[in-house]
Amino acid sequence: MAFDAQKKRALERLRIRGADEEIAGVLEKINSLEDFFTTSSCSGRIALICLPEIGAKREAKFIGKWHRPLTKEEVLEAIKIKSSAGVSNKGEVWLLSQSPILHVACRGLEKAKVLLKIAIESGFKYSSIKAISNSKGNGKVVVEIVSTERMDVPLGKDSVMFCSESYMDFILSKANFMLERGKEKLRRFYYGLNELE
Amino acid sequence: MAFDAQKKRALERLRIRGADEEIAGVLEKINSLEDFFTTSSCSGRIALICLPEIGAKREAKFIGKWHRPLTKEEVLEAIKIKSSAGVSNKGEVWLLSQSPILHVACRGLEKAKVLLKIAIESGFKYSSIKAISNSKGNGKVVVEIVSTERMDVPLGKDSVMFCSESYMDFILSKANFMLERGKEKLRRFYYGLNELE
Repeated sequence: MAFDAQKKRALERLRIRGADEEIAGVLEKINSLEDFFTTSSCSGRIALICLPEIGAKREAKFIGKWHRPLTKEEVLEAIKIKSSAGVSNKGEVWLLSQSPILHVACRGLEKAKVLLKIAIESGFKYSSIKAISNSKGNGKVVVEIVSTERMDVPLGKDSVMFCSESYMDFILSKANFMLERGKEKLRRFYYGLNELE
Repeated sequence: MAFDAQKKRALERLRIRGADEEIAGVLEKINSLEDFFTTSSCSGRIALICLPEIGAKREAKFIGKWHRPLTKEEVLEAIKIKSSAGVSNKGEVWLLSQSPILHVACRGLEKAKVLLKIAIESGFKYSSIKAISNSKGNGKVVVEIVSTERMDVPLGKDSVMFCSESYMDFILSKANFMLERGKEKLRRFYYGLNELE
């Protein structure tokens, strides 16, 4: 399918599903440009997941996800509700702090390289090219925009928390700080996008 | 500089610096192929770092790094030695479990795409194209090969550990397991490379 037809479909999906408020401005700006469109996005979040075994993240069940700062009480409550709802909580409970992430389809390699440069300069240091639809460099190229801040902390197993409450306070202060840092980078990226106009 | 001249220099650097034993076979196999060469690598490791503030990983000082499973006693000892040596330990202490990582220069986009496919199929799901030297797709393309397993856990601050010893046991069992999983993926990747021959 041609780039413009794919873009039309992606915009339609976005219109239906919506996006996090804090990333909506960035999406709008990118989608207003002829040679780019967004295919997925998250403004950064804190997530609690339950894993049957390590690394098997595809089988992870979400206990909760938040795009805003979180308190220890909220974490403990989320775990309690899940287990009292009779949901199986065999497995490990992990707290994840995840960077904003954006996938942008670009018309050709040259455009993708310019976007990648802006992303890296805005602080999204782990950004890269994830897919190239043909090898002459003039087809669709997908850029992933992502930052280095990340936390993946195992909290406990089978509903028993192995970390103390004061340690959880400490972890959450880090996670909340990372979340704010991600939002700051999104603001820098928003202004950086002016270079594409 | 032409691809072959760059490859010659990279092999010379590798010869001088050496590489982790567990990744040496993979490097040798890639470097024996005409259209590829490796520029950096790590077979996966557990690291203890001290950060002046979160996210400022460029300013991180290593307390220790290990390419093998680690015990709690070794972690505590490493932190103690560092602080008794009068090394400033203002800042946060983090334990990181890091995936194997490899950077491979490829001759042209088509070759890069094939390598990327093998890497992803071997379990290195976060692999991507990091740099493209020209936009026609026939120049040097750098592929980063990396897996999703990762742990970034804050342990304490200013030499005071916030996590309990039993919790540290738990964290280390996870980190050691991830390390082993990374090595397994390297073995799968090694055999996957046969497709390139």
